[in-house]
Amino acid sequence: MQTQTQVLTDLDAATMTEGGAPYGLVPDAAIALQDGQIAWIGAVADLPSRFADQPRTRLGGRLVTPALIDCHTHVVHGGHRATEFEMRLNGASYEEVARAGGGIISTVKATRAAGVEELVAQALPRVDAMLAVGVSVIEVKSGYGLDDDTELNMLRAARALPDHRPVRVLTSFLGAHAVPQDYKGRASDYIHQVCVPTLRAAHAEGLVDAVDAFCEGIAFQPEELIPLFEVATDLGLPIKIHAEQLSNLGGAKLAAGYGALSADHIEYLDEAGVLDMAQAGTVGVILPGAFYTLRETQTPPIDLLRRHAVPMALATDCNPGSAPMTSLLLAMNMGCTLFRMTPEEALQGVTVHAARALGLADCGQISVGRRADLAVWNVEHPAELAYRIGFNPLHTRIFGGIF
Amino acid sequence: MQTQTQVLTDLDAATMTEGGAPYGLVPDAAIALQDGQIAWIGAVADLPSRFADQPRTRLGGRLVTPALIDCHTHVVHGGHRATEFEMRLNGASYEEVARAGGGIISTVKATRAAGVEELVAQALPRVDAMLAVGVSVIEVKSGYGLDDDTELNMLRAARALPDHRPVRVLTSFLGAHAVPQDYKGRASDYIHQVCVPTLRAAHAEGLVDAVDAFCEGIAFQPEELIPLFEVATDLGLPIKIHAEQLSNLGGAKLAAGYGALSADHIEYLDEAGVLDMAQAGTVGVILPGAFYTLRETQTPPIDLLRRHAVPMALATDCNPGSAPMTSLLLAMNMGCTLFRMTPEEALQGVTVHAARALGLADCGQISVGRRADLAVWNVEHPAELAYRIGFNPLHTRIFGGIF
Ligand SMILES: [Zn+2]
Ligand SMILES: [Zn+2]
Repeated sequence: MQTQTQVLTDLDAATMTEGGAPYGLVPDAAIALQDGQIAWIGAVADLPSRFADQPRTRLGGRLVTPALIDCHTHVVHGGHRATEFEMRLNGASYEEVARAGGGIISTVKATRAAGVEELVAQALPRVDAMLAVGVSVIEVKSGYGLDDDTELNMLRAARALPDHRPVRVLTSFLGAHAVPQDYKGRASDYIHQVCVPTLRAAHAEGLVDAVDAFCEGIAFQPEELIPLFEVATDLGLPIKIHAEQLSNLGGAKLAAGYGALSADHIEYLDEAGVLDMAQAGTVGVILPGAFYTLRETQTPPIDLLRRHAVPMALATDCNPGSAPMTSLLLAMNMGCTLFRMTPEEALQGVTVHAARALGLADCGQISVGRRADLAVWNVEHPAELAYRIGFNPLHTRIFGGIF
Repeated sequence: MQTQTQVLTDLDAATMTEGGAPYGLVPDAAIALQDGQIAWIGAVADLPSRFADQPRTRLGGRLVTPALIDCHTHVVHGGHRATEFEMRLNGASYEEVARAGGGIISTVKATRAAGVEELVAQALPRVDAMLAVGVSVIEVKSGYGLDDDTELNMLRAARALPDHRPVRVLTSFLGAHAVPQDYKGRASDYIHQVCVPTLRAAHAEGLVDAVDAFCEGIAFQPEELIPLFEVATDLGLPIKIHAEQLSNLGGAKLAAGYGALSADHIEYLDEAGVLDMAQAGTVGVILPGAFYTLRETQTPPIDLLRRHAVPMALATDCNPGSAPMTSLLLAMNMGCTLFRMTPEEALQGVTVHAARALGLADCGQISVGRRADLAVWNVEHPAELAYRIGFNPLHTRIFGGIF
């Protein structure tokens, strides 16, 4: 596809390239777009003559960043859990909520009842909310089916989203999200009898970009996940893990041993686990929305991650139980307010480091050869993106060079 | 103004009338609108024959609530404080931030430098964000001028907002927001020499709907506020107060003694103060955004307020320092998540109780004779409004009967 070159000017660019100015900031920049990619970026004064006569779009002094990347979501699911939210706040016990059909089981039930089309239809308003704050890439997990048909349907729905909206989707197979009721007490049987064959079927259908698992007392022990991760590795699929959210079971260490793309949540991660991640190049995905909703008090080891240069990403964790949240900007504010990340770390977390958490090298920065996925903001300084709470200063989203 | 009657049908109405079903819910309701007011509300099956032939708007089974009311904002102000937010997260001390010109002083400086037109222009994007989540009434405070000219300009800017957007604005004079630098150590002199004469001038210009003050160790002691509240009472203006946010100085008690409309923040309020408020009919305005941003740990006495039937309102506190937040829906979620309010209390807090905190009897409920200020939502149940985080399910806002 040969498209006409266009040049964006009258802008400041937070390129998110590392090692230079904070945010990789280029004041009074020009960005040349060609064939859906970035053909040139630099100070407008240095614009090469070959771009001088190309059509220009002036951006009124606005800030341009890479389009945002939400690298951990459960955006495809059936139903919602507002009733359970209300029951709890009206004083119902967990037992009463469970007896009323609440908890993850209610989402599994609603997800199993929905077909692919219905799953897409229910996800689209949430996807729209994500795009509205400048998101171009969304990771989507399965994990509310817990049976072969529904896990496949969730992934098919995720793959179908780009047919309906200008967005790029990466999928993670999360069959190991919870032990379904009919396998209660037999987690390993569930892994062998359901997860592994469903993963193989999903992979054969081209539905899987990564394999994820929930390593926690209420879900799977590290050793139970080994057979799944072995199969993933045989299939050439990268690993992700929900780990150390409520306790330290060593899930991050296990995943890092498989060269995992990311370990996510990690509130209870210790220094040994951080070192394992650093060595493996595993990204730490910080999910403040779940921390906020669950009123947790143990914050992730941000200082240790910094000290050992583990890249930190930030995501919404969009899910109906612990984070019915769609705004990556709000996740940035929560990362700063609740976990004391800096605004620059927060923006790295939803751009360059989020790309890395998905194994993507073609987005997340404004640099030559990367995709022309950009966000244009009505702000003066990139710190404003994390500073505001629940406010959306997006002016324009550019996806593959298309406004 | 005689306008044509219109009838809304195919909807559930959360009328927020008290004493009946939760949320005053009327399933499968009809609402007749006439002359910008509600002419009839009830089950569609009971629609009187005089409305049977009027034009109908079918709302596809959506939920209709009263339009929302943000009863505590500082939405008119100059500049932002993203730089200070970033400095703090990069480890700067309060002294370093102050030396760099940060804190409330920076907002006072930016507000003094802006004229009325510029204050309006800067407020409008924030106002737009508020209207986008279904708000029809915004309370706006002065308090970043701390001199006669600028306090008046802030109130003039607030009064000008309805010329630019379909919104109703109520103003509060908050000259007693902070002691300006040139009155340091002379708070009473500032009240007598600046606040009182400026209040009289603003009142004479028709700019003041209520008088507010910040009662706190870092601002004004209760006894310093008495002369101001005496003048307010002489002028027939109702009282509001920022009280018991960081400590218990008895500000709520003082204000209740003047029959205050509301006492706001009130994290440190004790039972004696709650009883004073109950007796005076003073509303407790809960501001979780500031609590969240300041990472406070002392939560307001929700149980005591419930026990003594003090109405609770919820607001954004939209301000550049402790709550750069514009979403009343997010305030509802924070009220539930951080303070364990119920979703019904949260919706009362931004409708019927917020109206009461502003002394308004013509809005905040769907009942005959009230203004036709309505919000139509893409949700199945009112609890969803507080359940979601940073997601906006608004379908349509109706303001004075106008879609
Ligand atoms: Zn998750
Ligand atoms: Zn305030």
